[in-house]
Amino acid sequence: MDKLVEAIRKFDNPSVVGLDPTIALLPPQLFAGAREIVGDIDTVKGRALWAAMVNAKFLEFNRSIINAVKDIVPAVKVQIAMYEALGPAGMMAYVETCRAAHEAGLHVIGDIKRGDIGSTAAAYAYHLSGIPRPNSEIFQAFDLSGGASENTSQCKCLADDERDEGKPDASREELGFFPWYEDSVTVNPYLGTDGIAPFVDAAQQADKDIFVLVRTSNPSSDEFQELMSDNDQRVYEHVADKVMQWGSDSVGDEGFSRVGAVVGATHPRVGASLRARMPRAMFLIPGYGAQGGTASDVAAMFDVHGEGAIVNSSRGIIGAWRKDPAYNSALSIEDSLQLVGMNARRAALDMRDALNTALKERS
Amino acid sequence: MDKLVEAIRKFDNPSVVGLDPTIALLPPQLFAGAREIVGDIDTVKGRALWAAMVNAKFLEFNRSIINAVKDIVPAVKVQIAMYEALGPAGMMAYVETCRAAHEAGLHVIGDIKRGDIGSTAAAYAYHLSGIPRPNSEIFQAFDLSGGASENTSQCKCLADDERDEGKPDASREELGFFPWYEDSVTVNPYLGTDGIAPFVDAAQQADKDIFVLVRTSNPSSDEFQELMSDNDQRVYEHVADKVMQWGSDSVGDEGFSRVGAVVGATHPRVGASLRARMPRAMFLIPGYGAQGGTASDVAAMFDVHGEGAIVNSSRGIIGAWRKDPAYNSALSIEDSLQLVGMNARRAALDMRDALNTALKERS
Repeated sequence: MDKLVEAIRKFDNPSVVGLDPTIALLPPQLFAGAREIVGDIDTVKGRALWAAMVNAKFLEFNRSIINAVKDIVPAVKVQIAMYEALGPAGMMAYVETCRAAHEAGLHVIGDIKRGDIGSTAAAYAYHLSGIPRPNSEIFQAFDLSGGASENTSQCKCLADDERDEGKPDASREELGFFPWYEDSVTVNPYLGTDGIAPFVDAAQQADKDIFVLVRTSNPSSDEFQELMSDNDQRVYEHVADKVMQWGSDSVGDEGFSRVGAVVGATHPRVGASLRARMPRAMFLIPGYGAQGGTASDVAAMFDVHGEGAIVNSSRGIIGAWRKDPAYNSALSIEDSLQLVGMNARRAALDMRDALNTALKERS
Repeated sequence: MDKLVEAIRKFDNPSVVGLDPTIALLPPQLFAGAREIVGDIDTVKGRALWAAMVNAKFLEFNRSIINAVKDIVPAVKVQIAMYEALGPAGMMAYVETCRAAHEAGLHVIGDIKRGDIGSTAAAYAYHLSGIPRPNSEIFQAFDLSGGASENTSQCKCLADDERDEGKPDASREELGFFPWYEDSVTVNPYLGTDGIAPFVDAAQQADKDIFVLVRTSNPSSDEFQELMSDNDQRVYEHVADKVMQWGSDSVGDEGFSRVGAVVGATHPRVGASLRARMPRAMFLIPGYGAQGGTASDVAAMFDVHGEGAIVNSSRGIIGAWRKDPAYNSALSIEDSLQLVGMNARRAALDMRDALNTALKERS
């Protein structure tokens, strides 16, 4: 987590902007003319055009936010569900959003909440460690059927400008291909250690991080997470202890392991006790703002140095333009996106200041 | 679950084929010539070609399996992680696999194990209920910016053959677009009721089903699932009781609700007690074969009529060709895929017979 800690310090801002677009969160003028372009929605072509259009609009909207906040926030959290809601084509907007944020220098948290048995978790962990390179083991297999190995000289014929710009470093190359552009991902713990270990391994290999769901922000999260077990520990406390254990081999220079914890802003007392219980875990705190968590609620989830946590706000920032009286439906697309960005920036600055004030006011 | 129960009866076969391909599970000749086609893997183009190729090969492999088993098994389970492992482009092979199985008349279980807070779970639940149609609420928004509403007549200019073949029925149309082709999906319960309710609602609207993780098959699944709570019930038993509650409004003619349960074959005693505890839940049983569960292990998870459960096997069926002495690397692509299909069929028939024998032998 060293890189994330450094980014938080650099901006003096322990907050994350959640890039979770929905059609309702976009200024309607982004869809002006959509009906003509899409044509008949009851055709395969119409649907494909609609999916492509919403994808493009999500990306355009997200870029406005990224440009408006990239010099004041350290990180974004991209909720993959909002893109998966567009069907398989939505994955491109997810990836391009992650890429745009990555290229703007932001830490990219992929909120994917994956969880499965070991062999399957290993496949999901490619989000972090990349897709394996075929020319090591897999291209060898092709040679079984003969002939393929002789004809590799064509690689050298490619012009240099066809090669990647901004070459990744060598160790990154060895790992594989990185189609997702995430620096960390969220993971669900219900399956236990062998569902988490592949993510920890991948994070270690690729110098990345994970955040394990410990105590979520939603109203019914107490149903299973708060169950009291026979050793007087609640389920989420068992998960917290495992988080510490899973991260024990990867504590960085800043004192935090590669295994962080998701702890909802809506549980301030629990959050404070978890802070003590997981001293080596960076907290990712959702539930601020729209879900009800306040700056003073989350202040107790930071360590004595005012570090060790990063707070997410999604709708409160990306939807802030909707409360701006300067918005009206006659604005051009460009002007409406500028309004989106300006409001996002103002909301992000307010959040930063509210968090820093609450941290200073802690007794 | 009525449709799934009927399909199981029709084939007298309570088993599911898991379509979870990996590169290692495909005959190497499928990749003959790949090196020439891909060219330099260290270019954007090379990587895109590689992703497209693996996608196409996964689909080709899956189609061979589907064609070989479609008249003997009622369902397939498609593990989305194996496709997500190819990056965003992999989603197309996932969808096309689901579509091929759907078009072959198979019940398609999307093994997606999604779980999140309510608003986010609602986005994931589009897997079942479809993407909302823009021309109801959303196209209206476009009219804010004027002009778009007048120009809809072009829809009528489209030739009939541009419209969907095999028109979905009216109620399906009203729901939205169905890009995923799943009949049911798996869901993670860690976030409690408000993470599950959107899936239940979507299933109800679209006449589909869900399977909630209760007791998974993997070795470390006991870490949290087996914790004993202070009312002498284990965590998975609390989840089981919620599964019954979540399904209480959707019990079908066959006696099963839309909310099924994932219970691993590797826990036979637990499975038998869960059978009694969740009489209205269809069980989806992973962990048979490769993970160690046997036919007699799972027999006790069926009800007194020998129904109420469906058992998955993935590698045991799709990888059966690897033990066939008739395989050799000189086989053509076509012959190797035929071998894949033949072996899958034989393994699926063996599994069906083993399950039915074990069900008959139950005392």
